[in-house]
Amino acid sequence: MPAKDIFHGAVKNGLLKEGWTITADPLFIQVGDVDIYIDLAAEKLIAADRAGQQIAVEIKSFTLPSLIYAFHLAVGQYINYRQALHEVAPHRVLYLAIPEDVYESFFARRLIQSVIENNHIHLLVYDNVQEVIVKWLN
Amino acid sequence: MPAKDIFHGAVKNGLLKEGWTITADPLFIQVGDVDIYIDLAAEKLIAADRAGQQIAVEIKSFTLPSLIYAFHLAVGQYINYRQALHEVAPHRVLYLAIPEDVYESFFARRLIQSVIENNHIHLLVYDNVQEVIVKWLN
Repeated sequence: MPAKDIFHGAVKNGLLKEGWTITADPLFIQVGDVDIYIDLAAEKLIAADRAGQQIAVEIKSFTLPSLIYAFHLAVGQYINYRQALHEVAPHRVLYLAIPEDVYESFFARRLIQSVIENNHIHLLVYDNVQEVIVKWLN
Repeated sequence: MPAKDIFHGAVKNGLLKEGWTITADPLFIQVGDVDIYIDLAAEKLIAADRAGQQIAVEIKSFTLPSLIYAFHLAVGQYINYRQALHEVAPHRVLYLAIPEDVYESFFARRLIQSVIENNHIHLLVYDNVQEVIVKWLN
């Protein structure tokens, strides 16, 4: 099982404040003989939707020395986890959680925006100090 | 500039044996303010195609302790490098170079195959002992 990201608790608390129930920490899924661990699974009951909304969240702090290296890894994890979810839990929507300051600086770059858009990567932007979710981007 | 993969020389020699000319080692490209280094750029003249065929190759040994971690990173690099090439050198085709034993074992898994197919990742399979290209998969 991989080590938890340093902002794992901040994102978890942010989701709890928005009324989400954490249903797995981490979420373990298996596709064939490949084991996958995604940081969090959460669920929220919504009026008129008895099944509730289900998400999986991969949390990134982007505190690595190289932002572009961290981005390569995050994109690969997102693509692979989404494929794995598609095969075993197709209704669960995957989010990549990133800190607000990284969203406003590094993620404003043209290449990064193109990759996010063209690969339909859903972002959850969090404030790691206040421990709140700032923005959901689908 | 990132460190060279341990099988960098094997893939380079394999390409030379097939008549490719190495035109950059590494290939540096810049998109906005993001710098990208791809392991190799090569070119081959083909009859009836004066412009020649141009490729870029990202070389992976998959000797990391975790194959799935190495795969996450490789997929992210491929997606991001392809986007960068699309913006600055759209005719250059990107290949992910992987060792033959990894192709025949790890890459035979269902999840890995699905990711490769659904994301249109081109593979170049090499024999790191003989230093030859075994297979091109588009």
